[in-house]
Amino acid sequence: MDFPGFSLDTSLLEKAKEPEPEVTYDLLILGGGPAAMSAAVYAARKMMKLAIITKDFGGQVRETSEIENWLGFQSINAKDLVDSFEEHVKSFDIPVSLGPSITEVKREADAFKVQTDDIRIYSSRTLILATGKRHRPLNVQGEKELVGRGVAYCATCDAPFFKEKKVVVAGGGNSAFTTAVDLLKVGAEVILVNFIKGWQADEALQERVKQTGKASLLDNHQVIRIEGKDSVTTVVVKNRENEEEKKLDTDGVFVEIGLLPNNESVKNLVELNEQGEVIVDCSCRTSVEGLFGAGDVTTVPHKQIVIAAGEGAKAALSAYNYLINKSLI
Amino acid sequence: MDFPGFSLDTSLLEKAKEPEPEVTYDLLILGGGPAAMSAAVYAARKMMKLAIITKDFGGQVRETSEIENWLGFQSINAKDLVDSFEEHVKSFDIPVSLGPSITEVKREADAFKVQTDDIRIYSSRTLILATGKRHRPLNVQGEKELVGRGVAYCATCDAPFFKEKKVVVAGGGNSAFTTAVDLLKVGAEVILVNFIKGWQADEALQERVKQTGKASLLDNHQVIRIEGKDSVTTVVVKNRENEEEKKLDTDGVFVEIGLLPNNESVKNLVELNEQGEVIVDCSCRTSVEGLFGAGDVTTVPHKQIVIAAGEGAKAALSAYNYLINKSLI
Repeated sequence: MDFPGFSLDTSLLEKAKEPEPEVTYDLLILGGGPAAMSAAVYAARKMMKLAIITKDFGGQVRETSEIENWLGFQSINAKDLVDSFEEHVKSFDIPVSLGPSITEVKREADAFKVQTDDIRIYSSRTLILATGKRHRPLNVQGEKELVGRGVAYCATCDAPFFKEKKVVVAGGGNSAFTTAVDLLKVGAEVILVNFIKGWQADEALQERVKQTGKASLLDNHQVIRIEGKDSVTTVVVKNRENEEEKKLDTDGVFVEIGLLPNNESVKNLVELNEQGEVIVDCSCRTSVEGLFGAGDVTTVPHKQIVIAAGEGAKAALSAYNYLINKSLI
Repeated sequence: MDFPGFSLDTSLLEKAKEPEPEVTYDLLILGGGPAAMSAAVYAARKMMKLAIITKDFGGQVRETSEIENWLGFQSINAKDLVDSFEEHVKSFDIPVSLGPSITEVKREADAFKVQTDDIRIYSSRTLILATGKRHRPLNVQGEKELVGRGVAYCATCDAPFFKEKKVVVAGGGNSAFTTAVDLLKVGAEVILVNFIKGWQADEALQERVKQTGKASLLDNHQVIRIEGKDSVTTVVVKNRENEEEKKLDTDGVFVEIGLLPNNESVKNLVELNEQGEVIVDCSCRTSVEGLFGAGDVTTVPHKQIVIAAGEGAKAALSAYNYLINKSLI
């Protein structure tokens, strides 16, 4: 098999040119994860005048180690995969503002104004918001240090790596219990640790986990430290009633205490659901005409690279059709 | 860069085992295009008991030559891409019924029954319908023979290969004119040929094409033959009023006379829209509980590989959640 796309042209990874504040773009893409990168490829091929504003390329994918569910690769290193995405985007001559954060998005007359914290304002007739989500972290010692080496945030992505292993799941809601189910299915032994007293997950889901006899449940316990050198070996928890500390031997920790959509720049502009996600229809349209949303920042179900990439393509084609229908392109 | 997924294990491409008619599966996937293959990867990783029923692997992608919009590959041969998808699917031990057509899908008590034309009946608690669409072909001499060598069916995929070329677009509706727009944007010279008298596309879209001065419009003309040896050189059309034949020199022909959803097996079971597409919500649910739809056979907008792959993943995760919530898995 011959895969011509994989000859790495390193010149393409050099600094792209910056977007120009004086220009009104057809499309500005806000974000740099798979949704944003897929949108960029589709928009560039439609020859739209576009630019990207992002802090980095890769988004949450860079928090993962191996990827086994990107169609076509039985297993691929997460960094290699997003590097290939970035290279694809940079093969088009798209200006990129890399680094500054977006502080506010406004709609003014017929253009959106996007302000960044380096005091620049960019203009565009359409926007794709693809700023993703961030994990609510435990904020404990060892967490950041051991990401991808036992500390994980996505069961669909990473549960298969914990076959027959011991795993702590931090959290007590549906996502924590769904993570436990996924881990139990690969033969892992699971300890659920919930900060508050009682469990928030659906009863049926709780029952399902409990009746396996392979899960221990510790509520009213706080994770206070994750230990390990090359990979996670121990999680230290504290009983919040009697302050007693306990060391749990473990091969991994799944942190499932919630996700926060990166919606700050648009929260006064566009309709959000109760979780703060940007509400989109099946064509990635938001409540604001000309503003499209793609990937994890939106109401699309399931946090997956291939789903985000599909949504990014949809959003770009929807933005293109919008401009065509308005005779703006 | 190291891409471990690309070591081709040819043993995996050998015949997969057949699904068993006696078993009730968790999930049957109907179809073998990108939506179906992505669904299979996701369902297999969730350890669902699943099987695939399809005539072939690859679907419409095999009608294309080069792919430039599958994220991560600046350019890849369509066959190589779907071979890598197929290899990924076959790395899991999923039974496949390859060849027979699906004749009917029924809902009986708590299981779906899927009948194939080799007189087998398979049972499953959930189904993903990912049978795709087929192009309404011109059915003229030279069309089949020159697919991928000038004859094309997707402007988003293939317009960039016709930069500065002469191209005939067969059709008179929105998709024909959108194809013309895409071709004009890459500097192609376009001749639109419409079978009936008058044009069905939106006025604005027609105007947009006409005012470029780079498009000729021939209505009430029938394409009667496509000529060329290694690639398309000529399209022969006939004036339907005076029966006069005309030879058009051209480098390509885009056939945009409609798409037909492969919905025959479910048309008496599930809600369809006016175009015969299976109506799905943003989680790929259809009007029938337990029956999910993904990709081109559904109402999802835009016919794109990455979108279909995203929808397949969504459908598999929705089917999984459905079974979990019903405590059936």
